[in-house]
Amino acid sequence: MNQSDYLLQEATNFIHTCYTELGIPEEEQNKRISDIEDEIHRTGTYVHTSLELTHGAKMAWRNNNRCIGRLLWDTLHIIDARHIHTAEDAYDKLIEHINFATNDGNIRSTITIFPPRFDGKDPMRIWNHQLLRYAGYESNGEVIGDSTSIAFTKECERLGWSGEQTNYDILPLVIQELGQTPKLFEIPKKIVKEVEIIHPQFEEFKSLNLKWYAVPIISDMRLEIGGIDYPMAPFNGWYMGTEIGARNLADEDRYNALPKIAEIMGLNTNSDRSLWIDKALVELNIAVIYSFEKAGVTLVDHHTAAKQFKAFEKKEMKHNRPVTGNRAWLLPPLSSATTHIYHKPYKNDIVTPNYFYQEKAYEPTT
Amino acid sequence: MNQSDYLLQEATNFIHTCYTELGIPEEEQNKRISDIEDEIHRTGTYVHTSLELTHGAKMAWRNNNRCIGRLLWDTLHIIDARHIHTAEDAYDKLIEHINFATNDGNIRSTITIFPPRFDGKDPMRIWNHQLLRYAGYESNGEVIGDSTSIAFTKECERLGWSGEQTNYDILPLVIQELGQTPKLFEIPKKIVKEVEIIHPQFEEFKSLNLKWYAVPIISDMRLEIGGIDYPMAPFNGWYMGTEIGARNLADEDRYNALPKIAEIMGLNTNSDRSLWIDKALVELNIAVIYSFEKAGVTLVDHHTAAKQFKAFEKKEMKHNRPVTGNRAWLLPPLSSATTHIYHKPYKNDIVTPNYFYQEKAYEPTT
Ligand code: HEM
Ligand code: HEM
Repeated sequence: MNQSDYLLQEATNFIHTCYTELGIPEEEQNKRISDIEDEIHRTGTYVHTSLELTHGAKMAWRNNNRCIGRLLWDTLHIIDARHIHTAEDAYDKLIEHINFATNDGNIRSTITIFPPRFDGKDPMRIWNHQLLRYAGYESNGEVIGDSTSIAFTKECERLGWSGEQTNYDILPLVIQELGQTPKLFEIPKKIVKEVEIIHPQFEEFKSLNLKWYAVPIISDMRLEIGGIDYPMAPFNGWYMGTEIGARNLADEDRYNALPKIAEIMGLNTNSDRSLWIDKALVELNIAVIYSFEKAGVTLVDHHTAAKQFKAFEKKEMKHNRPVTGNRAWLLPPLSSATTHIYHKPYKNDIVTPNYFYQEKAYEPTT
Repeated sequence: MNQSDYLLQEATNFIHTCYTELGIPEEEQNKRISDIEDEIHRTGTYVHTSLELTHGAKMAWRNNNRCIGRLLWDTLHIIDARHIHTAEDAYDKLIEHINFATNDGNIRSTITIFPPRFDGKDPMRIWNHQLLRYAGYESNGEVIGDSTSIAFTKECERLGWSGEQTNYDILPLVIQELGQTPKLFEIPKKIVKEVEIIHPQFEEFKSLNLKWYAVPIISDMRLEIGGIDYPMAPFNGWYMGTEIGARNLADEDRYNALPKIAEIMGLNTNSDRSLWIDKALVELNIAVIYSFEKAGVTLVDHHTAAKQFKAFEKKEMKHNRPVTGNRAWLLPPLSSATTHIYHKPYKNDIVTPNYFYQEKAYEPTT
């Protein structure tokens, strides 16, 4: 099948599903599809209406097998940035995204959608993995900051950036227009909401100086709707506690907080059999949930998230939409068997619209 | 491919691998294979030598993708029961297995291998899922005992057994010779080692009257070696703590101990956000490990087991044997991301010899 036949086929499927869900009659669906057909023949592509873009991005969330937060798929806010063509304007939009999504802690699920791929080329790409992320520096085998950011931090440094070498330096945004050198923009500190991790009982948690940013805004995935690729479409929900408490701050090769927490708790770390790791892990997760709550920042615990996912499964069934899922990703890394997800099989079939991994925007220099 | 060609092919592969591992020269391998070929042509099957049976059962353990305990594959004890043809003699062998494996708490990994399938028929089958297992009774939606045993308990009752209706009634053994009615045998209480669950700090754990048996002896899987099926080949290792503490005693639809433990601990069970489930779960698992240790019964914690599995991976790599694995099963249900298994992909290819699920030995009456 050639490129435009493929595109038309994907568009047709999408329009039928999307419009049917929205209660738009078949006649209108067919009219729209024949318009799209004309447009593809004239221009090689087609442009989503605002309605299609909005509902398509929501469907993409609903279809993502790895996301436990999908009950709320219909609450996604869309910022249409398809008219943006310069890195500078894109930067403004990204700042708008951060502000709108953060909303002083009352987080809003949001996506900002920049121009689509055309003729196999991406008009613009953002190099960051997430809009907000801590830098990572490695020297002599020691890591400061977030080890997952080491390669990207090096790129920023090559582009002239230099961080303060703390564990929590917010990385700059790196935006590249097609064929141009990438441009680097600092994010104003005052718009970055962060939460210091404290514990409801163990006062000394404070002395660990742990913190995390409030809003996870994934910026390196490709949004695909009806055959159209949006390579720059950063989106956010809010955190599930375990992402911070059982991964980012806990993983040995990330912030590795468990040994220090065990010390504060006075646990016997000489033997794995004491389950000091598990005890420290639970208290860290309690601290994360407590701290976000105290700071007035939206965050969901893994039990509630699993229950919401169960409600999602039920709701989708009612709408005759089979729920696909990736069990390995859906399972929380803490007390997994206490959620219903552990006890169920899920079909990991990939349905579009969806969010996909894509080629990195840059070749990391190593 | 017809049945005997298939069998010869499987046998050939097995003999080559098995004998090579054991350092037996190729000449002897080929001699053995040609003997097997003759035997298959004469009899329709072939009989494993004692060496083949022993090493084959060990290889089957080593190849099981779901088992985290595989580092110790070479320590398996084999009881050869291929000469056993009556339910009564089988019962004696199973009692021998229980005693030998239990070893007063110093558990020995053991398998007892009964006659193989021949001509598509199983000379004998045992109906039990595990040799030692608690009965489960359901009435008016209430369950006493182990809910996973309800169907089998009903079968036992149909065969004339009647339990004491406690939460911990050891089920009888049900053995069926080909074409005969199944026979039911009680296991003498005095040979069943059990461990009362107590907690190193929370005295009141005792009042929950939780306990578990010492030795998990899976009896409903089929052992396959070199194309030969052993439908009755109960095997045991020892427990990993989470199997009891994060599943059997914890699951809501099993012994559901977490709410009671939370009460003892004085936790706020009104909100999931307090992570009372996770806290209670860790303490239950601490209690399981502590109680087994106190009782002198072998049991491994999930961190140590994961480390042993890592050592297994390393050792296998050294022997040029790719390690296959089923990540979903290998991951402990407690603090999964703190083990290296979480951070690695595993290929779930099925290699033989291996242990497989098989058709139930009975049609459950419902
Ligand atoms: C509203 C609150 C939300 C919660 C609590 C939530 C929760 C999660 C969690 C826990 C994961 C697994 C992350 C990991 O293990 O690294 C995940 C993955 C994912 N979520 Fe959500 N999510 C939310 C909103 C959203 C939104 C708004 C979108 C898109 C519009 C989205 C799309 C995705 C995608 C694409 C992944 C997979 C990421 C990957 O493959 O790396 N989620 N989500
Ligand atoms: C020596 C100590 C052993 C430990 C700590 C151990 C640990 C485990 C664990 C934790 C599981 C997962 C069980 C579940 O989630 O239900 C498992 C599964 C399994 N193990 Fe092991 N194991 C041991 C010995 C053995 C032995 C001796 C054999 C056979 C000779 C064996 C064969 C298997 C098999 C076949 C499964 C999969 C069961 C199924 O599919 O339902 N293991 N093991």
